[in-house]
Amino acid sequence: MENFILHTPTRVLFGKNQISNLRNEVPSDARILITYGGGSVKRNGVLDKVYSALAGMHVSEFGGIEPNPAYETLMKAVEQVRNEKIDFLLAVGGGSVLDGTKFIAAAADYEGDPWNIMETVGSKITRAIPLGSVLTLPATGSEMNAGAVITRRTTGDKQHFFSRHVMPKFAILDPEYTYSLPPRQVANGVVDAFIHVMEQYLTYPVDAKVQDRFAEGLLQTLIEEGPKALQEPENYAVRANIMWSATMALNGLIATGVPVDWATHMLGHELTAMHGMDHGQTLAVILPVMMQYKRQQKHAKLLQYAERVWNLRDGSEDQRIDGAIAATRNFFEQMGIKTHLRDYGLDGSTIPAMLEKLQEHGMTALGEHGDITPEDSRKIYEAAL
Amino acid sequence: MENFILHTPTRVLFGKNQISNLRNEVPSDARILITYGGGSVKRNGVLDKVYSALAGMHVSEFGGIEPNPAYETLMKAVEQVRNEKIDFLLAVGGGSVLDGTKFIAAAADYEGDPWNIMETVGSKITRAIPLGSVLTLPATGSEMNAGAVITRRTTGDKQHFFSRHVMPKFAILDPEYTYSLPPRQVANGVVDAFIHVMEQYLTYPVDAKVQDRFAEGLLQTLIEEGPKALQEPENYAVRANIMWSATMALNGLIATGVPVDWATHMLGHELTAMHGMDHGQTLAVILPVMMQYKRQQKHAKLLQYAERVWNLRDGSEDQRIDGAIAATRNFFEQMGIKTHLRDYGLDGSTIPAMLEKLQEHGMTALGEHGDITPEDSRKIYEAAL
Repeated sequence: MENFILHTPTRVLFGKNQISNLRNEVPSDARILITYGGGSVKRNGVLDKVYSALAGMHVSEFGGIEPNPAYETLMKAVEQVRNEKIDFLLAVGGGSVLDGTKFIAAAADYEGDPWNIMETVGSKITRAIPLGSVLTLPATGSEMNAGAVITRRTTGDKQHFFSRHVMPKFAILDPEYTYSLPPRQVANGVVDAFIHVMEQYLTYPVDAKVQDRFAEGLLQTLIEEGPKALQEPENYAVRANIMWSATMALNGLIATGVPVDWATHMLGHELTAMHGMDHGQTLAVILPVMMQYKRQQKHAKLLQYAERVWNLRDGSEDQRIDGAIAATRNFFEQMGIKTHLRDYGLDGSTIPAMLEKLQEHGMTALGEHGDITPEDSRKIYEAAL
Repeated sequence: MENFILHTPTRVLFGKNQISNLRNEVPSDARILITYGGGSVKRNGVLDKVYSALAGMHVSEFGGIEPNPAYETLMKAVEQVRNEKIDFLLAVGGGSVLDGTKFIAAAADYEGDPWNIMETVGSKITRAIPLGSVLTLPATGSEMNAGAVITRRTTGDKQHFFSRHVMPKFAILDPEYTYSLPPRQVANGVVDAFIHVMEQYLTYPVDAKVQDRFAEGLLQTLIEEGPKALQEPENYAVRANIMWSATMALNGLIATGVPVDWATHMLGHELTAMHGMDHGQTLAVILPVMMQYKRQQKHAKLLQYAERVWNLRDGSEDQRIDGAIAATRNFFEQMGIKTHLRDYGLDGSTIPAMLEKLQEHGMTALGEHGDITPEDSRKIYEAAL
């Protein structure tokens, strides 16, 4: 096991009607900006509940944060924050609203060109406006971590940053708020969470037994509950298990002391930036190919995954690994997410342009060994067609 | 799944030589009191490392906190804290030093008789001196939670309290510091952590799949690694896995949204208070009897435990449950901990006195259903002979 530091100070309020505790989580004299997305929180009544919970407090709002939140949109919110002297941000929505709100929190307090904060380590961020969230879409884990992914539409860049200063103060997780999600978003969320776990699990063994067991438990839960969420949208236990899995998948816990991969995400980001594919779709397309392409380096963990997650114990090692890769792809398809680029109308003609973007973003040595070159990425994109 | 709030703000610094980060975790102008136990931290050099790390800072010390830390001892430290205007406490040791330090932290700032803070909910505690820890014995999980257990020698009382104000600010967990532990303490620690998990797992199903999987993963890890720690004291990976399991076993994570038992602990506390048995010994004696005594109420979870933790899938349900109970007892014995009261020279003559103490401490409706009466407790003690 490698050395690590774990710090997850976000207060999680999980369950039915936890919104009734919202008022106690925000400073009573705060000037609050509620941020949200395309308006689903208006239609499903969650925004009304937030306003009721904050009755009498100083509240304004900024709506319209899109999926894969855009720098151009967020900068308008930054201006509003500065003009209205906002000192607390409340994200009401899913991962995109949360990520966008983290950018707003950091950019509003940043001197200079805010796009400069988009660096992996985020070391340029020395302070941020405090924020909390009311989550409506379990997927990204953003509600309990220090990261965010932002897209700049004008240049087609999708990049991430991390800073402890944007770690949410609290997260209200009410599984009932997820009942009204469209099936496509449910599926994307489950697949996103699943692949978050895989990025931190499917590398090479370092004898980190707790982390491995936790990761496997999350994968098993998502496999069991994901399809049920599509079939029984108002099954509370199913929604609760998915919501908790998604938070645990990316709050730092299972990354403690182990190598991490994230190559699938990096290749997926370019697909979203260039073609507007859903984040979950890009991951479902890339991961099975990545598993196949790196099957030698990931051999030991692939066998462990086959046995413990898919109960594949018979046949040769290669057969078990083939079985695990097929089962993974089948799970995504079962969730209603297609797993080939041609399913999304792509013919490979933009692969050279995506490889250029990868290089521009410094993504030339990807994976847990840093051995995935642009040439490897080309082969992976091609195999994903 | 039940509603819950999870808040674990303790910063964990895990791994080799994390002591080099200690200085950054303590306010630079703090007046620090280092607390420790019987002197093993002097013999193994950990205390020297702490002093080196804090060179030039204002540091004094209080040693002699005993296993099952005594109110009478701790009140001397409270006096020292007040006299020296200490404003940061650094616990260097195991769970007893940590628990004792939590009591010092709360009592030093408490007006009135400090024994009054010993209430389950600790609502009388409104502030405490901040504290951190350098852990040397993985077992109690006290390094990342808000609880403490204190014994009053003069009256034979062993009671616990909880307060968010005594949650440690940080915990330095270096597995190498555990190499020199005597086998008895290693065994007690593994069994203690194991039974912490069981108290939060072996109740009744509430469809909390993540929590169940996490709990099972911790149990499996302790079963795999515990005996190895006795055989290979300087196996870093083994020590690291045990240390991380023990912290995860009682930091609130696996208790989220599920019923909890704790009856084994309550019955065990009286054995320690009256007879001075090690905490781990008392748990190893009581738990197998508790599993048998409550096998009907715990039926579903016992079957799940048998299948997932011990891989018992054949035979009747009763046979699998019998097998799981026997395997549990065998694991404790394999760790070198005897599992019958007679192994510790007890003949049952003090059971009436222990039952009186249980009643005095309000422990008359124990377990996840609150249905373990004093009469049940008597039968459990008798069956444990």
